[in-house]
Amino acid sequence: MQTDNLLKQVSFIKEIDKLKYIQRKTKLFNSDRHENDAEHSWHLAMMAIVLVEHSDKPIDVLKVLKMVLIHDIVEFDAGDTFIYDSTKSHTNTDEELIAAKRIFGLLPSEQAEELIAIWEEFEEGITDEAKFAKLMDRFEPLLQNTSNNGGTWTEFNVPYQKVYDKKKAIKNGSSAIWNYAENLINESVDKGILIKKTD
Amino acid sequence: MQTDNLLKQVSFIKEIDKLKYIQRKTKLFNSDRHENDAEHSWHLAMMAIVLVEHSDKPIDVLKVLKMVLIHDIVEFDAGDTFIYDSTKSHTNTDEELIAAKRIFGLLPSEQAEELIAIWEEFEEGITDEAKFAKLMDRFEPLLQNTSNNGGTWTEFNVPYQKVYDKKKAIKNGSSAIWNYAENLINESVDKGILIKKTD
Repeated sequence: MQTDNLLKQVSFIKEIDKLKYIQRKTKLFNSDRHENDAEHSWHLAMMAIVLVEHSDKPIDVLKVLKMVLIHDIVEFDAGDTFIYDSTKSHTNTDEELIAAKRIFGLLPSEQAEELIAIWEEFEEGITDEAKFAKLMDRFEPLLQNTSNNGGTWTEFNVPYQKVYDKKKAIKNGSSAIWNYAENLINESVDKGILIKKTD
Repeated sequence: MQTDNLLKQVSFIKEIDKLKYIQRKTKLFNSDRHENDAEHSWHLAMMAIVLVEHSDKPIDVLKVLKMVLIHDIVEFDAGDTFIYDSTKSHTNTDEELIAAKRIFGLLPSEQAEELIAIWEEFEEGITDEAKFAKLMDRFEPLLQNTSNNGGTWTEFNVPYQKVYDKKKAIKNGSSAIWNYAENLINESVDKGILIKKTD
């Protein structure tokens, strides 16, 4: 049984190597090099570890870490959706659920069920852990874009209001980080790297 | 105080982006592309999550995750040391300690002390958590090298005995994973991708 589990886990470990090939739209800090999903997931985990004191609610850090470490794994079957792409839905798509079942399904069944449940909890964004994990996922590209003279905002002409609306998810996890993030967004407008459309 | 902490944490979050530029000797699975330290750290964290049942001792998974996520951070000041490089010490060098103090020192002091202590605990490899974390660090390149026709063993002419001696650290964390790993090493000899020197 233990050996059988180990063989399944090794298959999973090999399969998820693919996350290192999924390129994100955002770039590394002060850089022209695109970030990949594995690097991004590592960075969110580090952020969750050091920022936990700012969570408005007490949270299970281990669960948050599992969420951010696995949250993009479905993308190597279902593809990456750019957060400001308005032509594609960002809700938990059928395609993503099929991907989650296939990929986590490589693991022993109890473990597969646990990780699919954690991934779904993250996607739903309702629990305190999911809110804090999603905060990380919004906060990292905000820091990256401001370090890159606007980054994807400038590159894809994303206006202030769209950025503001997406970043508001930060508020659900931490009022302190939201306060910092809101200032950063406003400063970006002042610097001209984020454009407020007046129409 | 909270704002002051947040500013320090953001500096740290930006600084550790450098881990994504530290290239390892080992390559991705079935690939010619070198792995970087951030990808590697993410992969070890995923491995720790799915392999925990094989630990010979009960372990604090959250601590293991912190260990593997931060274990290579010193390398962007102190440099990466190839595990089979016999000209350089692999023990906790002064240079690495200085790096740990500088990098983790960007954080609020209590947090810096916690992470330096966790990093030192990993380096010493004595506690059950450190043994399990080190197991991951040995097991991932074993899986990579066997998927890459010998990988760094072939590239740098690393003989069987050296590999076997380094990989024995796996035994300290899990007899089940060691059993699997030992078979994999022996199979590699049979396949001719790992050479037993007879002298």
